[in-house]
Amino acid sequence: MAGDVHYLIRRGFFYAHRDLRTILDRQRTGLKWALYSGRGPSADLHIGHLVPWMLGRWFVNRFGVEYFFEMTDDEKFLVKEGYTLEQTNRYAYENALDLIALGFPPDKLHIIIDTEDIKYLYKIAVRVGKKLTLSTVKHTFGFTDSTNVGAAFFPTLEISVAFLPTELYGETVPVLIPTAIDQDPYFRLARDIAEDLGYPKPSTIYGKFIPGLTGEDKMSASNPDSAIYITDEERDVKRKIMNALTGGQPTAEFQRKYGGDPDNCVVYKYHLLFQESDEKVKRIYEDCKVGKLLCGECKAMLFERIREFMKEHNERRERAKDVVQQYRLSTKFK
Amino acid sequence: MAGDVHYLIRRGFFYAHRDLRTILDRQRTGLKWALYSGRGPSADLHIGHLVPWMLGRWFVNRFGVEYFFEMTDDEKFLVKEGYTLEQTNRYAYENALDLIALGFPPDKLHIIIDTEDIKYLYKIAVRVGKKLTLSTVKHTFGFTDSTNVGAAFFPTLEISVAFLPTELYGETVPVLIPTAIDQDPYFRLARDIAEDLGYPKPSTIYGKFIPGLTGEDKMSASNPDSAIYITDEERDVKRKIMNALTGGQPTAEFQRKYGGDPDNCVVYKYHLLFQESDEKVKRIYEDCKVGKLLCGECKAMLFERIREFMKEHNERRERAKDVVQQYRLSTKFK
Repeated sequence: MAGDVHYLIRRGFFYAHRDLRTILDRQRTGLKWALYSGRGPSADLHIGHLVPWMLGRWFVNRFGVEYFFEMTDDEKFLVKEGYTLEQTNRYAYENALDLIALGFPPDKLHIIIDTEDIKYLYKIAVRVGKKLTLSTVKHTFGFTDSTNVGAAFFPTLEISVAFLPTELYGETVPVLIPTAIDQDPYFRLARDIAEDLGYPKPSTIYGKFIPGLTGEDKMSASNPDSAIYITDEERDVKRKIMNALTGGQPTAEFQRKYGGDPDNCVVYKYHLLFQESDEKVKRIYEDCKVGKLLCGECKAMLFERIREFMKEHNERRERAKDVVQQYRLSTKFK
Repeated sequence: MAGDVHYLIRRGFFYAHRDLRTILDRQRTGLKWALYSGRGPSADLHIGHLVPWMLGRWFVNRFGVEYFFEMTDDEKFLVKEGYTLEQTNRYAYENALDLIALGFPPDKLHIIIDTEDIKYLYKIAVRVGKKLTLSTVKHTFGFTDSTNVGAAFFPTLEISVAFLPTELYGETVPVLIPTAIDQDPYFRLARDIAEDLGYPKPSTIYGKFIPGLTGEDKMSASNPDSAIYITDEERDVKRKIMNALTGGQPTAEFQRKYGGDPDNCVVYKYHLLFQESDEKVKRIYEDCKVGKLLCGECKAMLFERIREFMKEHNERRERAKDVVQQYRLSTKFK
């Protein structure tokens, strides 16, 4: 894998892993493995959500692996007040369009919508469920006796997808899961019980949370200006980027004199995420450092990049509507 | 319904109900309702298990209602050590043959095998699961933190079948559930949450446990002589009946002098369950009371009746193997 590692790994956005060696060994020796990601579908999809899926696309294109993607419309309904199951199911389709828009061969991306594709998961989930006591899920996920029993059972389904490729192919197919650290408890449990159930342990690589534009550690649904949503109008994107927190000096004069601090700059982080060209990123970093690049110009460059990204994305998203069924697991597996 | 009530109701085997009036009212006014029973599939099916299903058959034939029948192969696996899911699934098919053998029109009996037909139930189960806290299922079913999360979630599926006819028909279709009292907690919960979910409350009628031949309150898997299994050889059936506990006197002489006590006699109870003719049952009762019928003869009569019942049953069970798919819910509903 050396040499052409994806820029999100190279730049440290994916910063840690568990048992990646197993996957690399299989790749080297020509053995089957698969990718697995998921999404709790809702309306508030921001461009940061697309970043790990872009890494998924790279794995698919670079290694020809299959990508299993779980839309957990059941979980979103179970853990959030105020959602109907019809709503979360509809969001599953909406979010699937964004995933497909990134560009996958239909035979490689398998989208699972929990409430519709439960038949693929339930037998595995029952076996998983027999291995996990209420005490285990309470301690692992912070559930209490006030948690609803649907939410308490749900982890079995997120775990089950890690074992699904092995079931579908009738041979050992371990998965690599690009994920944020908050989902790690699911996969630690999956590893704990995998061997008992005759499945390979899943491997994981951990992505950072995308910082909020206004300085939060994580984009936040409660502050709409902290994130750029897929559905944002161009003028909103511009405003959000122009108002973003930077590592710049208080004035242009100071910036020219002392340079900026790209290592502590949200705008620079977004360049790192959405600008594939190492050369361009390097120039931004250096020009900022020496005070040649002012924050206003840098933000304008980012806006231009994001505007272009979103324009292309929305065009491809529109075309995805005609082909979404080709990406459903149920279209390809009986 | 007066006039031709089934002998199991007339003789008090079904002895109580909750909200039967709703069902009777719908029947009188020509509105749709359905029947619902279930079985945790295993190898130890005894003839007592067939008794409530015979009442089901009567309802189907008398009122033309549809009979939804849930084989809970998931639950049996989840709550019993030592079963594989493949085993409980196989038993679901085996037990289905016994149900079908009782004689149903294929368009009226809909057999659901949980692990295979989960797609019909899961969306309902998720809605049910959101309404039930862990605290509720713990208190209702005696679960503890050591209970596995699959077993804890399972009640949502048993409850979901009560709501399934309404989903399938897109109109209000309340169910009547012939059941033993041990299953009542599921249906009390179902009634608690039904209206919130937009479903009609299920009604129930309660059957007694079949007494063990050797005097236990209930046939027991741990004492094979307490029950007659579908798979028993004729000689075993004979031995079990001949060894059964009766209300007879210690000697034939005493029996002739003082008469027997059919009201406290397991053999008489079995006559009540398996002898449809009121006249024959009445003669047995009276002849016993006055000492005209000795226990040996009475047992021989019961053996003859059971032998005939089982012979017919096993012939019909054999024929059921060719038509089992016609009775699957999945054959009839998309």
